[in-house]
This record gives sequence, C-alpha cells and structure tokens, in this order.
Amino acid sequence: MTAPTLRDVAERAGVSIRTVSNVVNGYARVTDATKVRVQAAIDELGYRPNLMARNLKQGRTRIIALVVPALDVPYFAELVRLIIGEARARGYAVLIDQTDGDVERERELIMEASRAVSFDGVIASPLSLTAADLESRHGSAPILLLGEKIFDSSADHVAIDNVTAAREMTAHLIGLGRRRIAAIGVHQDPTDGTAVLRTRGYREAFTQAGLTVDESLMVPTPHYERRHGAAAMAQLLDHPEPPDAVFCFSDLLALGAMRVAFSRGLRIPEDLALAGFDDIEDGRYSTPTLTTIAPDKRQLARAAVAGILARIESDAYDAPVEITASHRLVVRESTVGGAVGQPV
Amino acid sequence: MTAPTLRDVAERAGVSIRTVSNVVNGYARVTDATKVRVQAAIDELGYRPNLMARNLKQGRTRIIALVVPALDVPYFAELVRLIIGEARARGYAVLIDQTDGDVERERELIMEASRAVSFDGVIASPLSLTAADLESRHGSAPILLLGEKIFDSSADHVAIDNVTAAREMTAHLIGLGRRRIAAIGVHQDPTDGTAVLRTRGYREAFTQAGLTVDESLMVPTPHYERRHGAAAMAQLLDHPEPPDAVFCFSDLLALGAMRVAFSRGLRIPEDLALAGFDDIEDGRYSTPTLTTIAPDKRQLARAAVAGILARIESDAYDAPVEITASHRLVVRESTVGGAVGQPV
Repeated sequence: MTAPTLRDVAERAGVSIRTVSNVVNGYARVTDATKVRVQAAIDELGYRPNLMARNLKQGRTRIIALVVPALDVPYFAELVRLIIGEARARGYAVLIDQTDGDVERERELIMEASRAVSFDGVIASPLSLTAADLESRHGSAPILLLGEKIFDSSADHVAIDNVTAAREMTAHLIGLGRRRIAAIGVHQDPTDGTAVLRTRGYREAFTQAGLTVDESLMVPTPHYERRHGAAAMAQLLDHPEPPDAVFCFSDLLALGAMRVAFSRGLRIPEDLALAGFDDIEDGRYSTPTLTTIAPDKRQLARAAVAGILARIESDAYDAPVEITASHRLVVRESTVGGAVGQPV
Repeated sequence: MTAPTLRDVAERAGVSIRTVSNVVNGYARVTDATKVRVQAAIDELGYRPNLMARNLKQGRTRIIALVVPALDVPYFAELVRLIIGEARARGYAVLIDQTDGDVERERELIMEASRAVSFDGVIASPLSLTAADLESRHGSAPILLLGEKIFDSSADHVAIDNVTAAREMTAHLIGLGRRRIAAIGVHQDPTDGTAVLRTRGYREAFTQAGLTVDESLMVPTPHYERRHGAAAMAQLLDHPEPPDAVFCFSDLLALGAMRVAFSRGLRIPEDLALAGFDDIEDGRYSTPTLTTIAPDKRQLARAAVAGILARIESDAYDAPVEITASHRLVVRESTVGGAVGQPV
C-alpha cells in the first residue's frame, strides 16, 4: 500500500486539497469544525508530509525549468526576464520551454515525460492544465504554478488577485459614465483561469453598480494576442448598438483593438474608452497611452523563485503555499484623454 | 609549446582569421596569392584543426546555452522563441541567460567562468564582445555568434547583411523626396556592430544619391529601447532645422520616437516620415503602421541551431562558418501614409 497523500486526506475529510493544506500549514480562514474534520482524516490515514522523497534527493543540477505559453508575448517576456534575474542571484540557471498555448505540449512539458535533461524544480504558467494532470505527474521535481489557475491542487501557487483587478478596471469605466462597456477575452473554456477570473470581476462591478451586463458585448477570443483583439473589435463595431468602452483582458488585445478603432475613424477615448491588462511597455508608448492593470511583476518573479527554491533546498513541511502579489490600476490617456496633438 | 591556432596562422600569413578559415574551408572569394600564403603558414606551423578536443568530449547534456542582451526586447523575444522551437525539434533544450547589455556580464556569461551548469554549445548575441575575448575563452563548448559583430573571429556567425538593409531603407526615404533624413541609434562605440554597420549603410545611400549627410541629424543612443528613441526624437524636434524623415535603427526606437512626434502635434508621414528596423509585431499594429526592415528570423534561428549542432555533433573540419540570412524592406503607413481615420 502506498503512503496516503494530501488528496487522500481531502477525500476522507470531504474537503478540498487546498483546505487540507491550509489546515496542515496553520493558515487562517479555516473554520474550527473543518480543522477538526481534517485532523481526524490525517490521524486515521496516518498522513505524513513527503519528507523521505526529499531526503533521498541527490545530485542537484541547479537548473530551474520554466514553462510558459509563449516567450514573445511581452507580459511573459518581461516576467521571464525578471525570473532569470532572481534565479541567477540565487545561483540557479533557467531552462525555458514554451507551450505555444498547446494543451498537449503543455501537458507533455510539465509532466516531464519527454524531457532529456534534468532540473531541480519547475515554475509553470499553465493555460489548461488540470488538477488531475498535476496529481499524476511522473516527475519528482517540485512544481510551482505562476499565474491564473482555477483548479484546486497541491502545488504552490503565485498570482495576483484577478477578480479584484478586473472589478476595479470595470468600476473605473463605469465611474467615467460609460454604460455600454464591452469585454474582450471573456472565458469560453472553463479551465482557462485568466479568462474565468477576469470575467467574474467584470460581472461583479456591474452588479455592485446596480447595472446589468449586456451579454452581446462579451467577446471570447482564442488567445490574448493583438490579432485576436483586432478581430473582436471589428465584431463589436459592427454591433447595432456599439460599445462606448472596451475592457480588453490583455494589453495586446487592447493594442490590436486600438488599431481597428482608429482605422474606422473612432477617437479614443472620446468615442470609445479603451483599457487593457498587464502593463506591458508597449502601452506606455502608444498614442493614446493605455489604461491598464499593472501586476507587480517583480514581486511575482521574486515569490516564484523563492517559492520553488524553498521546495528544492529544504525538506520543510510540504503543504502548498498560496501567494497573492499586488497590482494597481494605472489610468492613462485611453480612458481619460490628454494626448497632446492627438487627434490632430 | 601549445598547438598552433587559426590566429597563429593568420598572423604568420599576415591575413585575417576569417581569411584563413575561408582558405581552410575551401570558400571562394580568396585570391590565389592569398591561398598560397595561407597554405604556406599552415604548413610552416603545422596547424591542425582541433579534432582531439572534440573526440575527448563525453557525456552530452543536450542543452544549448543562449545568451542574449535582453529577453523583453521584442526582437530577441521573437528570435528566442524560434530558436527554442528549432532546438526542441532537434532534441535539445535551451538554457537562457541575458546580459542586460552589460559588458562585464556578457563577458562573464560567454566566458563561462561563473556558470554552475554545463551545456554542449553556446549561441550568443554579444553587444560588445571582442575577438580577443573569444580567443581567450576558458570553456570548451563551441560557440556561434548570432547577429551583428564587426570583429574578425574564429567563431561561426549568422546574421543578415546590415549594411545593405540600412542602405535600402535610407534610399527608400530619399526616393520619397525627403532630404533632411535623420538617423537615431548611430554608433558611438566602435565595438557596437549593429550601430556601426547600419550607420555605414545609411551613409552609403546618401553617397549613392549624390547627397551629403547632415551630421547634426545623426543621434547616438545608449541602447535601442523605446525611451531612447523618445529622447532622441525630442532632441531632433528642437533642432533649428528639424528633419522631414527619421530612420530609427530599431522598431522600438521608432515607436518611442512616434509617441514624441504625436505629442508635439506632428502628422506621420505628412510632416515626418518614420522608419524602423526589426519588424517586431508592435509595428504592424501601431497607427500608423511602421515601415521597417524585416530580417528573416526563422532563417536566422534555423541557421543558428543547425550551425551549433553541427559543431556539437560532428568532428568535422573546424573552420568558422559565415551565414547571411535574408531580409526585406517592408513599406507601411509611417512612410507612405494611408491609415484610414488617422489623423481624424
């Protein structure tokens, strides 16, 4: 018989894996009743954190594998740059692989089945990985998830509060008096954490303001690139009642949308307020400059590297860690105007 | 006494290292007289390609190290993405490090002095490495240089023809009737290959057209980022006789310059034609879209990976290989106009 896992404890106690880890780790926000139930399951099953495997570990490579959807998406490029810097400062090199948003490739890379080289740990930004995938990993190297995921798993996780951020941006647009506020990049696939969480925040802002979302202004996109934003904006501008504001769930989507709005002769923000998400450098130099949500990327990178190294270098208690990095709403010309000389 | 190197042969024959390798490799474009002189030096010194070191090599890691100035510069991000894809298709993983344009860090990384992990070969895009640096490398892993270098070395090299590309772009602007054509990103540091070669092409176009360059319109920049383009453009617009066209030596410089031109109320291209270099995606979605030089990045990536793997996997004759990838001039709205609805 194999040793009981966090998952076994969760099933026995009838709670989520995250809840078990919160109890094990002594985190707050767990009711006393739940604590008792989880502790009972731990005792019954004889659950012990996986110390042995760690102690057996030998011959470190001092390489961290980093798996991201695409290196040429500026948000990831900026984040990867910071992660490499943080890792190097700790004496680790970074091996990079990209999934191109391909589910199968993502699974293959993160599951380590096909990898020829070895590494001490993995930082991954999965787009579509499920909790079941993670639980069945072949590899023994610890993994940390970076970015939006919605499933409950036993892996460490670092992200910003996407629901709050999306709610704040939508509230900003409502506060400017806009009412037909479209959203580009809403969720289609329930495993797409980013889209699901940002859509939730968008909806919450309407509810809080006592307004109703017009579902016909919510446009899903296959990915978050410029061309998808351009296509979605073209679709919105053909709407019988076009929007007076658009919240794009990435800056790239917004920059693609901006191009289409200009080519149709619209003024931004006079005719259409436009907002993005990610705070990539492109949006600081566009005309107009782009209102956006700025995740604290340095904090994300630092927490991700510190988190995976804690797993690699220590045999501490193995309950998963959940870290929320900060973000801020950055208001620029695309929603409030002010670009001198534009439009001429 | 150590074995003679390519450099020793070059010194003895009074020619460049590249010329020696061309002779050794049987390339054309070497005069018969030179061939005889080089062969004599080879015979006198008893030069032999470094086969022994290769044969002794053991235990490959199937990792290629890739050293670039900065991952969040879109040109490098796009190129790195392609290189990872090419390497993976050949069964290799890519370990990435970035120099941040820091000369010391570049030297340190490429010289391998401080690296904790091992790899089979290096692809490097050095900004300021010299031939002497390369000759004195401690590491035994083969190296391939990707991008603009001006020094003569015994390393394999893959790049586009920067002089021709810059000359073509400048000729395009002259052909549009512009005469006060500024250049942003001209060389300051003689070891900066990119700037030196593009500046040469810019000058050649003037000469070919029977025109004279106005040196006061040539602005050097510390790097090729948006903020440097913005600062240089602000400087040019304060010129007593401001330019009617600006050729920026990178798209990022051009996008920074475009922002400043708009904020001063200028129309592009009516008041100022603007061109970049690199063909990053940003310039395809800006308003106006950006005229640029498009290096064939896929060809660059494929040649770089094929080149370094040839060194790693075979013990073939070790004369350096020089590969020139293709490029094309891409004319868009920023020089010829046509953005519907802009300016309004």
